[in-house]
Amino acid sequence: MAENQELFESNAHEKRRHSSYLVPYSYYESRIPDYFPFVPLHWHREWELNYVTDGEGIMRIGDREAEVHPGDILLIQPEVLHAIEADGCLCYDTVVFRTEMLGSSEDRCYTEIIFPLSRGTARLLPIHTDNSCYLQLKECAEHVIFCAKENRAQTDLLMKGELLKLLWYMEQSGVIIYRQETDSWEEIRTVLDYMAEHYEDVITIELLARQVHLSESYFMQRFREISGMGAIEYLNRLRIQKACEKILGGTAVADAAYQCGFKNLSNFNRKFKVITGCTPRQYKKQKRG
Amino acid sequence: MAENQELFESNAHEKRRHSSYLVPYSYYESRIPDYFPFVPLHWHREWELNYVTDGEGIMRIGDREAEVHPGDILLIQPEVLHAIEADGCLCYDTVVFRTEMLGSSEDRCYTEIIFPLSRGTARLLPIHTDNSCYLQLKECAEHVIFCAKENRAQTDLLMKGELLKLLWYMEQSGVIIYRQETDSWEEIRTVLDYMAEHYEDVITIELLARQVHLSESYFMQRFREISGMGAIEYLNRLRIQKACEKILGGTAVADAAYQCGFKNLSNFNRKFKVITGCTPRQYKKQKRG
Repeated sequence: MAENQELFESNAHEKRRHSSYLVPYSYYESRIPDYFPFVPLHWHREWELNYVTDGEGIMRIGDREAEVHPGDILLIQPEVLHAIEADGCLCYDTVVFRTEMLGSSEDRCYTEIIFPLSRGTARLLPIHTDNSCYLQLKECAEHVIFCAKENRAQTDLLMKGELLKLLWYMEQSGVIIYRQETDSWEEIRTVLDYMAEHYEDVITIELLARQVHLSESYFMQRFREISGMGAIEYLNRLRIQKACEKILGGTAVADAAYQCGFKNLSNFNRKFKVITGCTPRQYKKQKRG
Repeated sequence: MAENQELFESNAHEKRRHSSYLVPYSYYESRIPDYFPFVPLHWHREWELNYVTDGEGIMRIGDREAEVHPGDILLIQPEVLHAIEADGCLCYDTVVFRTEMLGSSEDRCYTEIIFPLSRGTARLLPIHTDNSCYLQLKECAEHVIFCAKENRAQTDLLMKGELLKLLWYMEQSGVIIYRQETDSWEEIRTVLDYMAEHYEDVITIELLARQVHLSESYFMQRFREISGMGAIEYLNRLRIQKACEKILGGTAVADAAYQCGFKNLSNFNRKFKVITGCTPRQYKKQKRG
């Protein structure tokens, strides 16, 4: 719970340590809405393996959206923007790991497969239960999660082996897509970072577009393409998320609203209800028991 | 066959390239006595996986000897002295690979398991068919051999995965032995290299012991402990092996004998028969069809 809370609290560019040199991965049990209402668009330098165990939701990875169902396996490449949300409950296991877990010497399988994936010149499709290698992929994912929970040097051997086998079966079943051009999400990452640092202040489309030297209309179009929502909608969600943290931390509702950039309490209350499904006061009562 | 011939021709310290940066492994189909009469004591910086498919023989690994039977799996660590011989036929698949295939970052499973194995502070027992994880180990070994034969970037992913799983099941089934002290075979390696370079000349125990600054009696004891035979017996086998190569290359039998350090043709013929099971002339006829 503490770790998941931390996930919820993180900025767009997660700065916490998912891994160390000795233990290059972390395991998280994720539950929406029990541990957090949703996972906002963010990225990190590690890979992320998600295995959906219960419920349904929407996962946005890069500029694509996928409905996720129990049994789905989603491997997210380093630095790729991703977000998860669900109307009802969504439970999934997450293992975040460094590229080093896949070996990092300059051999053929690194330069031809792992490097393109880690640099974004190849991409991965979600694995659904109708995948031609699903049983093998599921076994690999389950072993990876087992090993990550075990968290010992010995099981790290098996985990690395299973991660490489997972990539092999992904390659075999055609979910690795090699492409020529690289999509640049650099501008959007810059804007997400700006919002995470300045959500307390007045933020306009004009101000955001200026950060990345784009016209307002082109910026709005790019942001929607990549995040699946308008920039102001994203900002509202971010502000409500920060307000939730403050309310849970003991801040009065009105203070939390003002501290998170809302100038008008009834507007805050309306947005809060739309995004979390309850009023600020209900939220506080429900979460604090 | 060309590659196996090369294996037979190699010196004690194999200097040929088993691997490259892009393709860090090689596959060999090995057949005693069809491809070579025996594999003399030698070592290399790569790991070596052997999977016995037919026949029986004796494998010497480090200072131990093991009888090998079909289904046995023998993983030999880098720089460990090893030799193989058989009275009858012995067929086995060999994959020689670099430590990089097992990943080489400074994480926990590398420093606690792979590094001790590659430096000889831990050692591996042979895997026989009564091993508690035999079916899993066999599957891993078969996949590794399949991938090495395929020889593609994609199958390299699977091969790395299966090698790590092999180590995991070896660890699980207790064939990885961690020990405090390191055995030093440095002296014996020096002597083997000396013999491989000077087999044409007169070589005595006194001369060999002097190379490694040991007393003759202690040198003889150490050599036998590690190689399983006396130093002069090893030298005779090496000389006969070199004579076989020369005879196959077209050198007259008597010339081959003298060029390989024998001063007496009837002594050569007697030793040849004992070691290869046939006379030089029969050998030539049999091998050249």
